[in-house]
Amino acid sequence: MAPASYTFAAGAEGAWRILDIRPSIGEGLAAASALDIRSGLVEAAPVEVWTLRGVVSNLRYTTAAEAAELDLKQPPLGRPEATRAALLPIRKSPAWWALAQDERRAVYEERSRHTSIGLDYLPRVARRLHHCRDLGEPFDFLTWFEFAPEHEAAFDELLARLRASEEWRYVEREVDIRLRRA
Amino acid sequence: MAPASYTFAAGAEGAWRILDIRPSIGEGLAAASALDIRSGLVEAAPVEVWTLRGVVSNLRYTTAAEAAELDLKQPPLGRPEATRAALLPIRKSPAWWALAQDERRAVYEERSRHTSIGLDYLPRVARRLHHCRDLGEPFDFLTWFEFAPEHEAAFDELLARLRASEEWRYVEREVDIRLRRA
Repeated sequence: MAPASYTFAAGAEGAWRILDIRPSIGEGLAAASALDIRSGLVEAAPVEVWTLRGVVSNLRYTTAAEAAELDLKQPPLGRPEATRAALLPIRKSPAWWALAQDERRAVYEERSRHTSIGLDYLPRVARRLHHCRDLGEPFDFLTWFEFAPEHEAAFDELLARLRASEEWRYVEREVDIRLRRA
Repeated sequence: MAPASYTFAAGAEGAWRILDIRPSIGEGLAAASALDIRSGLVEAAPVEVWTLRGVVSNLRYTTAAEAAELDLKQPPLGRPEATRAALLPIRKSPAWWALAQDERRAVYEERSRHTSIGLDYLPRVARRLHHCRDLGEPFDFLTWFEFAPEHEAAFDELLARLRASEEWRYVEREVDIRLRRA
């Protein structure tokens, strides 16, 4: 009954071709040509340029009402038309992690509208969130997004709205990786 | 800035002598004479009888008001008079993990009074919670408690109250390990 986990290995081979690796906040990640997504927490092979790992854990802020709305609207990964993708590794600050649960929830949704903003872009953008802070990884979250090429502008707008929110003041590292299906 | 992590290794040697390993719900754990608590997520050595690992992560349900009250009242680990300890590895059911955040909070505190019950036993019982579900461990939580021998009856009462709560209907495995400082 362990939660599903995934390893994102950047190197020469993989099902996704890396188009761009852009440091958004803080240090970026090394250039690589392809990304391979593997099931499980796999150790980095020497041939990989970088490897990031995360776990699809339980909901941390989402209420039952929000979860029901998301379940109705959010598409699955792997849609044939969704040939573009983005991987956004993010690390939040110690100040964020020192907040109590109700304080983080208030910033996340009541003041930053994280879930509400995301809902505006469904079903155009499919998404899977991976947690990795407790694994001792360099990032706290890895979010994987898939969309059709004509919806990349909408995806950019989604990111711009989130990055302008109070929640993003707590982001101390963010890398924006864009990909297309190989 | 990675969260602190600990490895609990049961075997022949360690700073704590194991007095009893009692299966409370579901399968127990093998008998061993001592417990060694190591810093970090250490791999199990072949000499160990069993090894459990966990991370001291961020607060998951505690509000800022509750955290302030806990900070005022909770004692540190390692008090000289606290020569008794308990380790309680717990795994919750898939039904628990499928609940949204507000639903789990409502069971945890509004209906089961988990934090409120715990506060009744402060400063007699010191406590450190470790999360391990996302690590792929056999348990979801390891809670380590320290108290003076004369407070063991109070600690038993604390456990009895929690075990009678609605939250405990979601516990599918619990082992109750009692120890004394070696």
